[in-house]
Amino acid sequence: MNRERVESIRWDGERLELLDQRILPSTETWLAIESADDAIGAIRDLVVRGAPAIGITAAYACVLAARRRGADTAGWHADLDRLVAARPTAINLRWAVERMRAALHESEPGASADALRVLAERIHADDLAANRAMAVAGATMIDPGSVVVTHCNTGSLATGGTGTALGVLVEAWRQDRLEQVYACETRPWLQGLRLTAWELAREGVPVDVLVEGAVAGLMRRRKVDWVVTGADRITANGDVVNKIGTLMLAILARRFGARMMVVAPVSTLDPASPDGSCIEIEQRDGGEIWRAGGLDSAPAGVGTYNPVFDVTPNELIDVIVTEGGVVSAPFGDRLAGLAVSA
Amino acid sequence: MNRERVESIRWDGERLELLDQRILPSTETWLAIESADDAIGAIRDLVVRGAPAIGITAAYACVLAARRRGADTAGWHADLDRLVAARPTAINLRWAVERMRAALHESEPGASADALRVLAERIHADDLAANRAMAVAGATMIDPGSVVVTHCNTGSLATGGTGTALGVLVEAWRQDRLEQVYACETRPWLQGLRLTAWELAREGVPVDVLVEGAVAGLMRRRKVDWVVTGADRITANGDVVNKIGTLMLAILARRFGARMMVVAPVSTLDPASPDGSCIEIEQRDGGEIWRAGGLDSAPAGVGTYNPVFDVTPNELIDVIVTEGGVVSAPFGDRLAGLAVSA
Repeated sequence: MNRERVESIRWDGERLELLDQRILPSTETWLAIESADDAIGAIRDLVVRGAPAIGITAAYACVLAARRRGADTAGWHADLDRLVAARPTAINLRWAVERMRAALHESEPGASADALRVLAERIHADDLAANRAMAVAGATMIDPGSVVVTHCNTGSLATGGTGTALGVLVEAWRQDRLEQVYACETRPWLQGLRLTAWELAREGVPVDVLVEGAVAGLMRRRKVDWVVTGADRITANGDVVNKIGTLMLAILARRFGARMMVVAPVSTLDPASPDGSCIEIEQRDGGEIWRAGGLDSAPAGVGTYNPVFDVTPNELIDVIVTEGGVVSAPFGDRLAGLAVSA
Repeated sequence: MNRERVESIRWDGERLELLDQRILPSTETWLAIESADDAIGAIRDLVVRGAPAIGITAAYACVLAARRRGADTAGWHADLDRLVAARPTAINLRWAVERMRAALHESEPGASADALRVLAERIHADDLAANRAMAVAGATMIDPGSVVVTHCNTGSLATGGTGTALGVLVEAWRQDRLEQVYACETRPWLQGLRLTAWELAREGVPVDVLVEGAVAGLMRRRKVDWVVTGADRITANGDVVNKIGTLMLAILARRFGARMMVVAPVSTLDPASPDGSCIEIEQRDGGEIWRAGGLDSAPAGVGTYNPVFDVTPNELIDVIVTEGGVVSAPFGDRLAGLAVSA
C-alpha cells in the first residue's frame, strides 16, 4: 500500500506547475504554467480538472498575471475575464477569480502581487482544510461493510487536498467502513478509469471500474449502499450540477434503494441561482467522444450530443456534505445558511 | 443519400466471408471463414456480432464443418458444441446450431453437406424476411415527429437483413415518422458510435451520438418518445436480456415518459426460461474497457466489472415486436404463443 500523497498542483511562491492529467495513469508529466494564457489553455484542455483544482489554478494564474501586467490594471482584469470564460459552468473558477479581483482594490496589479500571492495560497490551504473536514463528516455516514458507486474524479487530482467525494471514500476505507468501490469510467474523458481507479489503488481501496451502462445491472444484482459524487455547482434549492452521468446515477440509486451523497466545498454553492434550470450547461467538442473510436470527429452525416454536465434535482439527493456542515434532505433554505456562514 | 445495401455476411454457396466489424467505420475488410474454428474465433472476437448475424454465421459454419469432417460425425457434433460455447448468452446461436444438428438425422455430415447448406441458406433468407416484417410492424407504432434513443447496433450489420431495432428506425424514417435519433455510443465496444451511426448516416437519418451517461440529461431537456432496442434473449415472461445499458435506458424511459420498444426475431424468444433470473450473464475481459484509456488491462490493484448484458424486467417494456406478431404489455403468456406459431 503506497500512501505517498497524490498532488496535482505545485506552487513554490514563484512558479506554478500542473500535473498533466490528460495522460495519466500511463505517464506523469508536470507542465510549467507561466502566464494567464498558459493557465487558460490548461483549464480548457483539461490538463487540470475538478472544480476546486480549477479554482486554485486560476487564483495562482491571477498572481502570475499581476506580475506580468505591472501597472496595466485593465489588462489584468481582461486576463481575469478570460480565465472565468475558460470553463463557463465551473462556479469555483468564478469564485476564486472574483476573490482575487476584489483583493486588488485601487492599486496596480504589479504592486499588489505579493498580497495576491498570499490570498491565492490561502485559497489553496483552505481547500486542503476543507477536504479534510468533508472527508471526516462524510465518512461517519457510511456504515461498515458498505458498497459504494462513485463517478468522475473527485480526489487529490481534482482538488488542492485529499478530495471531495473521493476524500470521503478514502477516509471511510481508513476507518474500515468500505467493502468495495465501483468507479464509473466516466465517458467521454474517462476520469474514473484513468484517475479515480489510480488514486484508489494507491490507497489500497478495493475498486472495480465499470462502464456507465453497467451501473443499473450492478445495482440489480448487488446491494449498493451509496452513490457518492462531487459537484461542480449546487443551486440554492440543492439541485446539483455535476459531471454528465450523475443524474442517471441518482435515478438508479433511488430505484434500487441506494442513498445519494454529494460532497463539495461551500465555494460550490451558488445561492444566486434558485434552481438548476438557470444553469448554462457547457457543450464540448464531439471529438472527445469520437477519439475512442479512432476518429478525430464525427463522420459525415453524424452529429454529436456532448454536454459536460447534467442537473440532478434536489429530490434525488439524500445528503450534501460541505466543510461548513452536512445537510440532509429536504434541504429547504439551509444551504444558503452554509454559504453565508463559511 | 447512399442507399447501397449494407451487408455483413457474404455466402456464395461455397465460401463464407464476414465484414470485420472491429475496425469499422474507418476500414471495410472482409475476412474469409474456412472452418468452424475460424467462425468460432470470429464470433468470440466480435468480427461478427448481433444475435441474428451470429446465428446465421454459425449455421454456415456447420456446413463448412460438415464438408471438413466427412464421415466423422462425432467430430462434427464437437464442432457444433464449441460453436454454441463461443457466446454463451446468445440464444440465436444455440437455436441455429441445434436446427443444423437436428437436420443431420442419421447420415454422415459430409454426405449431408448439401442439405445442411440449403437449411443454412433458408435460415439466412428467413432472417431477411423477418427483418422486413419487424421493420414494418414497428414503424407503424412510431408517430410522425418522434425522437428516439437507440442502443448498440441492431442494423444490417447485426442481422442477415435490414436489422431489428434499426430496421424499424430506417423504415420509420422512410415513412417520414422520425425527427431525430440519438444513438448511445455503447461502451465498451462502441457499437453505436462505430456501427449504428455509420448505418443511419448511410440512410440519411438525422443521428446524434451520445455517451450512455448523457441519456438522462437528454431526456430531462428534450421530450424523447421511444427507446427502441434489440434483444439477445427474451424469457417466457418478457424479461429482456440485451446489451449492457439497456436496463438503464428502460428505467430512464419510464421516468421521463418515453415508451420502450424491443424488436427481435422469434428465434430470440426462450420459452424454456421462465424469467431473467435464470439467465447466465457473460462477463468479458476487462481489457475491452481499459483499451479506451490506452491500457491493455487494468493496472495493478484495480478490478473490472464487465458484464456484456443486463436483464430488463418485463414491467419496464411497453411493446415487443417480432416477425410473428407484436405484443404490448402486459405480456402474460402471449410470447410463448409467438414462439410456437412462428
